[in-house]
Order: sequence, then structure tokens, then C-alpha cells
Amino acid sequence: MQQHSITMLGTGLIGDFYTTTLHGQRSRDRVQVVYSRSAERGTAFQARHGIAESTTDMAAAIEHPDTDVVVVGLPNFLHEEAIGLVAKAGKAVLCTKPLGRTAEEARRILETVEKAGVFAGYLEDLCYTPKLLKAVASVKAGAIGDVTWVRSRETHPGPHSAWFWDGRLTGGGAIVDLGCHCIEIIRNYVGKGNRPVEVLCHTDTLVHPIADEDNAVALIRFESGAVGQFEVSWTFRGGMDLRDEVAGTHGTIWTNHFLRTGFEMFSAGGGPGGYVAEKAETSAGWLFPVGDEVSELGYVDMFSDMFDAMETGRAPQETFYDGYVVNAVMDAAYRSAKAHAWAPVELEWRGGSTPRIASTPETFEGQVVIKRELLPDGRQKLILKDPVSGDFSDRVVSGA
Amino acid sequence: MQQHSITMLGTGLIGDFYTTTLHGQRSRDRVQVVYSRSAERGTAFQARHGIAESTTDMAAAIEHPDTDVVVVGLPNFLHEEAIGLVAKAGKAVLCTKPLGRTAEEARRILETVEKAGVFAGYLEDLCYTPKLLKAVASVKAGAIGDVTWVRSRETHPGPHSAWFWDGRLTGGGAIVDLGCHCIEIIRNYVGKGNRPVEVLCHTDTLVHPIADEDNAVALIRFESGAVGQFEVSWTFRGGMDLRDEVAGTHGTIWTNHFLRTGFEMFSAGGGPGGYVAEKAETSAGWLFPVGDEVSELGYVDMFSDMFDAMETGRAPQETFYDGYVVNAVMDAAYRSAKAHAWAPVELEWRGGSTPRIASTPETFEGQVVIKRELLPDGRQKLILKDPVSGDFSDRVVSGA
Amino acid sequence: MQQHSITMLGTGLIGDFYTTTLHGQRSRDRVQVVYSRSAERGTAFQARHGIAESTTDMAAAIEHPDTDVVVVGLPNFLHEEAIGLVAKAGKAVLCTKPLGRTAEEARRILETVEKAGVFAGYLEDLCYTPKLLKAVASVKAGAIGDVTWVRSRETHPGPHSAWFWDGRLTGGGAIVDLGCHCIEIIRNYVGKGNRPVEVLCHTDTLVHPIADEDNAVALIRFESGAVGQFEVSWTFRGGMDLRDEVAGTHGTIWTNHFLRTGFEMFSAGGGPGGYVAEKAETSAGWLFPVGDEVSELGYVDMFSDMFDAMETGRAPQETFYDGYVVNAVMDAAYRSAKAHAWAPVELEWRGGSTPRIASTPETFEGQVVIKRELLPDGRQKLILKDPVSGDFSDRVVSGA
Amino acid sequence: MQQHSITMLGTGLIGDFYTTTLHGQRSRDRVQVVYSRSAERGTAFQARHGIAESTTDMAAAIEHPDTDVVVVGLPNFLHEEAIGLVAKAGKAVLCTKPLGRTAEEARRILETVEKAGVFAGYLEDLCYTPKLLKAVASVKAGAIGDVTWVRSRETHPGPHSAWFWDGRLTGGGAIVDLGCHCIEIIRNYVGKGNRPVEVLCHTDTLVHPIADEDNAVALIRFESGAVGQFEVSWTFRGGMDLRDEVAGTHGTIWTNHFLRTGFEMFSAGGGPGGYVAEKAETSAGWLFPVGDEVSELGYVDMFSDMFDAMETGRAPQETFYDGYVVNAVMDAAYRSAKAHAWAPVELEWRGGSTPRIASTPETFEGQVVIKRELLPDGRQKLILKDPVSGDFSDRVVSGA
Repeated sequence: MQQHSITMLGTGLIGDFYTTTLHGQRSRDRVQVVYSRSAERGTAFQARHGIAESTTDMAAAIEHPDTDVVVVGLPNFLHEEAIGLVAKAGKAVLCTKPLGRTAEEARRILETVEKAGVFAGYLEDLCYTPKLLKAVASVKAGAIGDVTWVRSRETHPGPHSAWFWDGRLTGGGAIVDLGCHCIEIIRNYVGKGNRPVEVLCHTDTLVHPIADEDNAVALIRFESGAVGQFEVSWTFRGGMDLRDEVAGTHGTIWTNHFLRTGFEMFSAGGGPGGYVAEKAETSAGWLFPVGDEVSELGYVDMFSDMFDAMETGRAPQETFYDGYVVNAVMDAAYRSAKAHAWAPVELEWRGGSTPRIASTPETFEGQVVIKRELLPDGRQKLILKDPVSGDFSDRVVSGA
Repeated sequence: MQQHSITMLGTGLIGDFYTTTLHGQRSRDRVQVVYSRSAERGTAFQARHGIAESTTDMAAAIEHPDTDVVVVGLPNFLHEEAIGLVAKAGKAVLCTKPLGRTAEEARRILETVEKAGVFAGYLEDLCYTPKLLKAVASVKAGAIGDVTWVRSRETHPGPHSAWFWDGRLTGGGAIVDLGCHCIEIIRNYVGKGNRPVEVLCHTDTLVHPIADEDNAVALIRFESGAVGQFEVSWTFRGGMDLRDEVAGTHGTIWTNHFLRTGFEMFSAGGGPGGYVAEKAETSAGWLFPVGDEVSELGYVDMFSDMFDAMETGRAPQETFYDGYVVNAVMDAAYRSAKAHAWAPVELEWRGGSTPRIASTPETFEGQVVIKRELLPDGRQKLILKDPVSGDFSDRVVSGA
Repeated sequence: MQQHSITMLGTGLIGDFYTTTLHGQRSRDRVQVVYSRSAERGTAFQARHGIAESTTDMAAAIEHPDTDVVVVGLPNFLHEEAIGLVAKAGKAVLCTKPLGRTAEEARRILETVEKAGVFAGYLEDLCYTPKLLKAVASVKAGAIGDVTWVRSRETHPGPHSAWFWDGRLTGGGAIVDLGCHCIEIIRNYVGKGNRPVEVLCHTDTLVHPIADEDNAVALIRFESGAVGQFEVSWTFRGGMDLRDEVAGTHGTIWTNHFLRTGFEMFSAGGGPGGYVAEKAETSAGWLFPVGDEVSELGYVDMFSDMFDAMETGRAPQETFYDGYVVNAVMDAAYRSAKAHAWAPVELEWRGGSTPRIASTPETFEGQVVIKRELLPDGRQKLILKDPVSGDFSDRVVSGA
Repeated sequence: MQQHSITMLGTGLIGDFYTTTLHGQRSRDRVQVVYSRSAERGTAFQARHGIAESTTDMAAAIEHPDTDVVVVGLPNFLHEEAIGLVAKAGKAVLCTKPLGRTAEEARRILETVEKAGVFAGYLEDLCYTPKLLKAVASVKAGAIGDVTWVRSRETHPGPHSAWFWDGRLTGGGAIVDLGCHCIEIIRNYVGKGNRPVEVLCHTDTLVHPIADEDNAVALIRFESGAVGQFEVSWTFRGGMDLRDEVAGTHGTIWTNHFLRTGFEMFSAGGGPGGYVAEKAETSAGWLFPVGDEVSELGYVDMFSDMFDAMETGRAPQETFYDGYVVNAVMDAAYRSAKAHAWAPVELEWRGGSTPRIASTPETFEGQVVIKRELLPDGRQKLILKDPVSGDFSDRVVSGA
């Protein structure tokens, strides 16, 4: 039974979620040292989570002799620098989303860890939610046939920390913050070997006085013909809306990770109220808390997969290559939004090829069967197409 | 108290819904004569609804001396001919969706009734659902601020009648069948005076062996900056999915008209089962019936508005001009799908102009306030932007 | 096509709902005269609904020469007097719930109308909601097998009018106000010929400073063994909770008539807000409006049934006898609550008898089959009981 | 960081859930030896979970030199014997629900562990669901005021193992199997110091050919006036229905742990389908899987609390005394069902006393305020009671 001793880089909201998870339930792993750019925030974080050491020296934290894993929970513009240091130190590195600010930066990061030969995991928690894990397993088992369309949506009223709003530090707006989640969720459903071919994206800045987009919608066309659709917004009202919808040739999947999970509360207010859920807007009226956020948001399964992969020598579900693909799709989205047209996804593809969604049409007495419907009396109604004339007709036949 | 005597053209599913509604509850109006291309279907329809007369002569039905209103429930390719005859007869005409197969056809139809000076109503039932009527009233009253985004979705496993599948008769595939509903729903939310400027659309034929699209997603950009998004499919599994989602600067609206309306039933099967709801796929397992379909789908409020408008000399909520706008948007969608880029909406616009969604940013000590958040201790956290440097910072201040 | 001219007695909330319905959509019926104890309220009501006449003379309203139907929307303590006058006038009478304050009063009212031979309908709107009508039809068609248990729940923060709170005028508290609905809903599901045998009820006054119960829960045992359960409260927070749950030997039905009907809205507030739904508590935060309240709450179908019954000479779905049964069950509930034990329902039963829920047990190789379960590998697992020893065992057999 | 080595007694469904949890995610604890009455089942279980040893000798398993904790996952009739052996071995004991078959048996078990001075935890997983933990914390923080009513419901189509059906081995039917969960959930909401005073219960055997109840509903009156209501059934159709509803003077809580948790799937079937969720009835049509069952059902938080309590020397949330109280309430339920009347709960109460739910009524100009309502125009409507005459009246006043 291996245990890990961890260097945590960053003390923002994501550092809290990560550390709460790593120390949670009956975990055998521990954060040994935390790095923060601010000594004050570092000390507070250390106390909050019962961590042995805190420092403002990033290199020292990374090279700490007792830790074997470094978790990067820093703002986007510091990822490349931090990961470079970890690679040099020869430790396993787990990096928060997005991997880079651009595909080019992500590609350099990927090269760095591949050259160094260190274990690298992409911390894409929303691809590890218990609902997604079970749903993707059902899809792979054929429960909904071929996937034709995936909608992934993440919207809320805007981030909590100042640096998120500064495109110079992040690489963009709501797409870079939220779209990266959606893109990788979509890839898990359509299949990671299904190449994202082109992207069509509309962005706008409708509410906040900022330079980058606070709203975006995009379509991603995959090689199989499947379409991914992401919707991201920093102007949504009502909390955080985290939903996925998957259409297949033989079924449908809907998951709701946040606002409607079977937990509903009305409070007339006046009491202390307290924390409801991440990005909740009110503490009175009808509220929709989430039971165990670190579990529901995927943090628990994510770190289990990462450490298990590390210990057994396999790749984790979410790799730095996945992070690079996500950056490439986001780059295409920005290019499409500017060009006002579809933009190709430019990337070094390692995923092989995926055939077109297709089915051999059924025939009935020489005609193509478009659809079968069960009538209330047990008979079947066929909608048929004449292959020669192209004419359509109805035919009622006795039941199967 | 005026009563209307009606000529019904068409005996398909929509004719059934219309007549059930017209004769429903304590209604004072009656269908006097029904026209069908098939004498057999006409007679069956007549018996089913207790109608006095049935005929296969369309002109005779329209010119019937006792009727004052003609309802067109015919396949798309017959609308222009039928409406021409009604205009000549000088009667009120109510036409099912879509008005035409193209904007050009719709424009000619519009001209015909305007020249003839007859009352003309566009039978867009889904713009009259009780939920939409109340939701749009809330939007107009300011409950969610400025509308920024509307998603309207209609998907099911494909139409019941053969002619729907033949693009030569309808003008297209799932867009012409279902998208027309979504476009007009979106217009009701963003405001009918808000010009649809351009459309970006992706179509594909993924499942059925037909020439036209069985799936489409589109974005409509309106003059205000608001985005409408429609999703239509003939390959959805699980029944009929009819949902709208509206985002505003100060609120959110979600309506579900079919699969989740507060009526859930599990049946182990074996019994006679019976009718569950339009386009339901099963009669065992978990089922989601709709209480009163003609009310929930808007038919009741639609005919009330039409007849009330006729009697009081005002325009109905949904006019032939609206039908024409919908056709123009659909035309743009098809052009966009072909061009693989945004396509302008080409139409004779009568709706005036709508200003850009905009708000004057709040300032705090010379800085732009990006966001205010309430902290658990009652203080407020401001995210601020320095207008000179463009830098972002956090500031915690005491509560309001 | 018959039309009715109506005398409306009462101008409270229920009078508004009734008149809105009677005058709604394309209705052919009209209220001709309204009676109120207060001239001011009468005149306001008259103006609000466009009614020709208003009076403070109840007898004159009832005997108005132009009306053929009298609707009793008065406080409970005035029902007997009003119905007596209508019976004398020989007109049809429709009376709101509950029929009487006690079974004895209801029995006298029933006698009065039966002696006079006038048409009498019990205005139990919640037994006419579109969801209940469809669900009961499914039950009758066998979709869920034999009904074993029905839970009907109506709770809200308390009535709007002062007289509701005065047990001297109403006959009780939350049971008389709300329980009457639940009891009759339950009877529709278990079958009206299924005799209510005994009642077990717990009441308490937990929040409001009143003499009567503000909370009650009761079980009703029917002849078939089915159990009805009603839950009523004047202290519920969050709006009006109107839900029914039905368990059958082969299925389940859940209906939600108010707080979760597929219409969800978040408003940050600040706008005019406006009316959300009956007994809504807030106009900001997450709100759950109802599309068309008069339709969803059953008023539309209720009056259609009443007038159709009147015109065709049949009994309406809800009769004064039903009202009497409801009063008898409520009387038993109060007696049980006092006695702290089950109390028999005392009534003149006209409904015949209903056999015990029963099924002949399946046997397998001489053993009684308790349960069959499908295993993932397609085989079946039987749980068996030895009829001699009474011992239970598992047995896995190949699939059917 | 303490780690535990565990003896697992029993290899049924509950043993699987327990061991999956103990070995789950990054857990540091391990099952060392498993005991089964059947060598075959023991070996299969051992292989399934990667456990070092398996035995059919219960005493040897308990006295295993390497384990410090014994988990009792045996049928009810073996609890007392097993716990006696663990107490003798001086090890910590964790016992599944219900503690005993009767309060008398539970009291003896409690005495045994208290005399031996060993750590004892009651494995009531449903009191550790993430939703319940958060909801109870909100209740304690005052978010819904005083709790007035709690409904806890657990129903499904019947247990998987033969012994559950044999009342001689379990102590009863659905109450003993499922009611124990509900009772303890209710106690967590109303407060564990709130004495259960009396119980009123109705049981029946409506569907299965067994001697014990397959359906039961009960009310539990607590000292504060709060009412607990449990509903249990072995005849529910549609899966497993696990819901709680809590009413308070200032709020409401609804939790749904199974059938509606934000995960919905439609499958046309034909594929391998696979496991959906515990007690799911179908693998086609609309399905409602649960993301991570061991987390959602409380197993993860339960064992964390148990081991943390053990390590820090505090009592766990759920103790053997709680198990004894639950048995006492179940005994009263059975006595009530037989007596057809309320039955007192007989138990040695250690919980102190709880005052009656009460509030000092507000007054306005000498009258008692029954209710305040906000009118659309901003004014307030008061419903007032004259303390002398007992008369009620409305009064509209200007807003606060």
C-alpha cells in the first residue's frame, strides 16, 4: 500500500478543493508542503488544512526532499514555469486545467514532461464525476448506440479571483476558464480516438466590463460526424449550471451535477444560513445544495485514478496529451469566433481514425424502411421510401 | 358572444389536435366541414369529431356558405394554393406552421392575404403554451433583466406521416419541421422587434436513410447581441424533448413542456398500457405522460387568441408576417449550413431597431467594479479593474 | 349547443377562480349575477369579471329569472342555507368543497337536493386536474395493477381569508380546508366503490395561535386493504405543495401539481416581480410558477364535466354523495385524533363491496415463489418458500 | 496516521458494499479475513475483494491476531452471538442494522459491549448520506427553524436474499428491514435528545405470500410535538425509492437519494445493458442510475466517522444506544399495529428532555397576529384574532 507525500502549489479555491480531497475520508496521502506567492495566504492555508510546511519559494517547495508528487494549482500563466521545475526535479506532476494558455504552450509543456520521463496527469475533475464515469461506461457498453451529439454546459455568474478576469494571465475569458471542462467531457463521450476536425464558435462580451468573452457557444465536429456543443458563460444567474446531454442512435443520457441533484431546501432566511454550494447566489428561498461537493465534482475519483496510474505504471484517464488537445480545440474556437466561420483544429493527432456513424438501412419488399412505429392495436406502421422514385409512403403491417 | 363555424383543411395528426381543441371543454365554436384528399380519411375524421360534412373538394370546403374561418392543416406544399382560395373567398385564414417552404413563398402568401384584407393568423401553438405565455410576461415585466441567450429545443424520433420525410413536399428536413417552432419561441423571448441579423447552422443526416437533415443546431444573432440557439432532431430517443432555456442579465428561465412536467408513472407492463403522450416510445417502465396535451402544447390559448383578435379587430400574437420571418431565418440556416459560415438573414424588416444589451459599469474609488460577492460574514468582496493599467484586484469591504 | 347563465354566490379567491374559468378561453357560459355579503366586494368583483349584475340579497341572486345554475362559493357555514334556497328555486346547484361542516350537515344537504330533484355537483377541482384524470384512467386500464397505497398531500403556509381560521365557521382546521381534497383524490384512485372502513389520524397545533389543528396526518383503510394517507398543513414553507403518490401491485404514479411542473425561474429581484402562483412566498430567487393555474388545478375540466352531465342527464364525476362521504371520513379523522386510536367511518354506504387485494401465489416445484429477479447474466433467481416447513431458500434457474 | 485491519463477518450484499467501501478510493484500511457460513461463498468473496484469508470459523475470524476491528454483516439472528465473541476478544465492533431483532435483544447487546468497554459503532449508512449530513447541519444551524414533521421513506420490490423473508430469523418484515433506517433518519432530523414518546402503525401483507408485513406506515410522536412518519414497502414498483422530507417552522428540506439524483438515461435496449443501480427493475426505457452508490448511500462517510471516532476516543454519530432506541421504536410499531392504537415507546431513555415547539404569538393593536402576507402592491395583509371574542378579521396595513 503506497502512500504519497505531496507538494501543493497554490492556495486558491482549487488548492482548497484539492487538499480537502487529498486529506479526505480515510486517505493515506498527505500534503507535506504548500507554496503560495503570499506568505500570509500560505500560512492560512497551512493552518486550514493541517499541513506541516508552507513557503513562498516555489523551487524549494517543488524540490522538497520528502515529497514525490507535485500538484500545480496555480494561475494559467505560471503552469509552464512550474512544470519545468517539477520535470527537472524528476517528480510526478499533476496539473490543473487548462494545461496551457494556448496549444503551443501546452505542446511545449507536454514535450517537457515526455522528455523528462516523469508521470504527468491532467487534473480535469469534471471528467471524473461519478455520474460521468458511470455514463461513459454505459456508452462504451453500447447502451445508447453511437453517440451523435453531446452538449456540455458550464455557466455561473463569474469567477471568485481577480486573476481569472485578466486575459493576459489566463489566455482568454469564459472559454479558457470553463470551455476546457466541456471539451474534455465531450471527448470522453464521443471517444478519445474520435478526432476533433473543426470548430465553429460565437463569443460575445454582454454584461461584464472586460475585454474577453463572458459568453460563448461552440460546435465541434468530430471525424465520426458526431457534434459536440459547449456553452459557457460568466453571466448565468441562479448558481452554477453544470449539465451534460448526450444523444445516441439508441438512447439518451442527461446528467445534472449541481443545481438539481435531488437535494432541495427552502429557507425563509433570518438564520445564519451558511454555505450552500460553490457559486450559490442566495441563502434564502429555494436552494439546491450539493451533498458532497468533492465527490460530486469528481475530485475523489480523479486523485484515485492519478495515484493508481502512478503506482501501476499505466496512463491516467486524463493525460497531458488530453490537455494539449483541449487547448488546440480552444484555439480553434477563438479563431472561428474571429473569422466568423468554421476553423480547423490544428494539432498533432495521436488518436487514430474513427469511422462515420452509419447504419445499413433496413428494407421491406424492396423499399427502404425509414421508421417503424408501434400502433396502439399492436400492429406496426412502416414509413417507406421508394429507392427509385424517392417517394415516401405509409404501410401498416401486422406486429412482429 | 360570437361563435365561429370553421372549415378544416386536412385530417392528419395536426387536424386532430386542432379539432379536438376547437370542440374542447365548453367551446362555442364548431368545425362545420372537413376537407381531405382521401374520402376515406375524411369520413373517418368526420365521424371521430362529430362534424356535419366532409368533402374531397378543397374549393367547395373553403367556399362553404356557412363557415367564416378556414383552418389550413395541410402539408407545406399545399399552403399557398389553399390560402389563395381562402383569400379569394374573403374569409379569415389560420395556417399551420411553417407558413411556406421558403421565405419567398411565405412572402407571396403574406402579400395575398394583405391584398385581400382578410384576417390571417399563424398557428404556432408552441408560442402559446401556458408556460411560455407566463414566462414571456415575466420577461417583459423585467424579472430576468435583458435576455442574452435563448435555447429552444425540439427533438423526437421522427414524424408519423410519410410526406414529412419528403423534402420536395416540405422544403427540407428537421429544420422545416421543428426549427420553425424554436425560431418563433426564441423571437418571443428576445422581443419581436429585435431583428435577426445572421444565422450559423450545422446540419447532418446521421441516422435515417433520407436526403434531408435529420439533425441541426443553429445560432441566431439578434441586433441586441442576444443569441438564439435551436436544436432539432429526428433521431432523439426517449420520446419528445421540448425544452426552452432563457438567460437574462438578472435571471434565468427553464421550461420543460413534455418529458418532465410533474407526472411520472412506472408500469411493469402487461396491461393494455394505452396512449402515453405524443411520440412516446414505450408503454412500460418509467413513463412521463402529459396531463392535458392540447392545453400544455398551446392549442387552447392559440385559438382563443386567434378568435379574440378576429372579433376585436386586433392582430393576433402570431401573424403571417411572423411566419415569413421564421421562413427567412430558416432559409439563412440552410445557406449557412451549405456555406459553412454565418449567413445573413434576408428579409423585409418591419420591426424597428433594438439597442445593444448594455449597462453602465459601476465604479468604486475610480476603479471599475467587475463583480460583487457576498461573503459568509456579511462583508462584500469586490473584483475591480484599474481603467488605466487594465489590472484586476480583489477588495473586501464592509457590507451594504 | 346549450349555454348556461349562472348565479355566483361569493366573491372570495374561489369565486375568482370559478368565474375566471367560466368566462375563460372560448367558453359559451356566463355569470349573470354575483352575490356578496358586502356591496363593495360585490361591485369590485362585478367589474373585475365583466358581470352584468351584483347584489347583496342572496335569495334574489338565486331566484334571478335569467339564470339556470347557481354556484355556491360561500364559507362553509352558509352552504346549507344557500343550497336550501337553490333547491326551492328548482335550479341546478354546484357547491364548493367541503359540502358540509359535518357528515350530518352534508347528509341533510344531500337529502334536500335529492328531494327537490335538482342537479347537484360537488366542485372538487383537484379531482379534475388533467394529471389526475389521465392517471386515474391509466389505473382503471390496469397500468399499475391493484392500488395498494395512495398518498395525497396538500400543504401551504395558511389560508388568505380570516374566516378560514375560525373553526366555528368552518367546522375545523387544516383537515376541513385541505383534507377534503386529499380524501376525494384518494377515493378516485382506490375506486369510489371501495368502502372507507376506518381512519387513524394525528392532529396538532404547532405554529399558529389558533384553537384548531394546523397540521394533520391520517391513514384511511379501505375495504380492499388499500391505504389512503393524507397529509395537510397550514405551516408548510416554500409555497403550496400539491402532490400525489400512488402505489400499485404493478406500477407507481407520482404527480406534482404545483411546485415542480417543469417551469423554473430564477430572478435576482429588483424588478416588479409580480404574481408567481397561488400561495408563493417570494418573488426573487428560484421560483416555480405554474403555467395555466385554472387548467392545472382542474377548474376547466371540472366545469366541463358539470355542464356536460347536466345537459346529458348523467351524474357528474363528483356528486353531493361524494361530498357526504368526504365529510364522513373527516368526522372519523377528528374522532380518531381525539380517541388516539382508529375510528370507524360512519356513513350510509351506497357503493357496493370491493374484494380484498389478492393474488394466487405462483409455485415452482411445489414451493411458493416469493419473488423472481433477473440476474445480469440472463438467468433468474427465485426466492422460494417451503409451504410445509416455512423455510425460505434461493434458487437460480435459467431464464424464461 | 492509523490504519485498521478488519475482520468481515458475512458475504451478502451488505458485506460487498462494506468491503468495496473499506477498500475504496485511497483508503488506508484493509479487510484481512472474511467469515462466511459457506466456504464457497467465502472464497468467492475473498477473490472478489482481494482479501488475504477466508474462513468458516466465526470465532477464529473474530480472534484473528492481526485484526483490530470486527464488522458484523450477518443476518439479524446472529448479531448477539457474534458481538458477544467480539466483546470477549476485546476488539472494536461495528454492527449492521438493525442492532437486534427486538429492543430486549438490542439492550442485552448494548450491555455486553458497555461491560466489555470495547468501541461499538452502529452501521446505519443512510444516516451518513452526504445529503443528510449537510441537511442536518443546516437544520442545526437554524435554516428551517424548529422541525415539525419528518417523512422518511424506503421502498423497493423486496430483498434479494432468502433469509430476509423469514421473520423467525429477522424479527419481522419490511419494518425490521427498512423501518430501522427511516427511524434513525427521523431522529437525526428532530434531534437525538428528542424522546420518541409513542408510535401509531398500520401494517399489512398485500402482495407477497409471507407471514410478515410487506407494507407499513407509522407515525412517531416526539416529546417536542414533532412527528416522524415512516413508509416502508416490499411491493414498490420502479426501483428503490429513498426519499426524506422535512418540514420546519421556517423552511423545508427534500432529499432524494436514488431515483431522481440528476442522472437520467434512456436506452432502447438490445445492448448488454448492465448494472443500473441496486434494485433497479429494468435495463431499457428510462433509467435512473446513481453516480457513486457507496458514496451516495453513506458508506464512505460512515466508515470515516467510525474510524475517526475510534482513533480520537469520541463516540461515533451512530452508537449501539441509537440502535437500541431504533429497536424500541420498532417494537412499539408492532405493538401499535396489533393493538390498532397508539403504543408507548418503552425504553431506558438517556437523552434528556426537549421543550415543546412553541413561539410567542406576535400582537398588533391588542390582537393576535395569525399570519402576515405581502400584497402585490407592497402593503401587508394581517389576519388577526381577537383574544376576547375569538373572532378573526383581515387588516391591510402599509408595508414594513
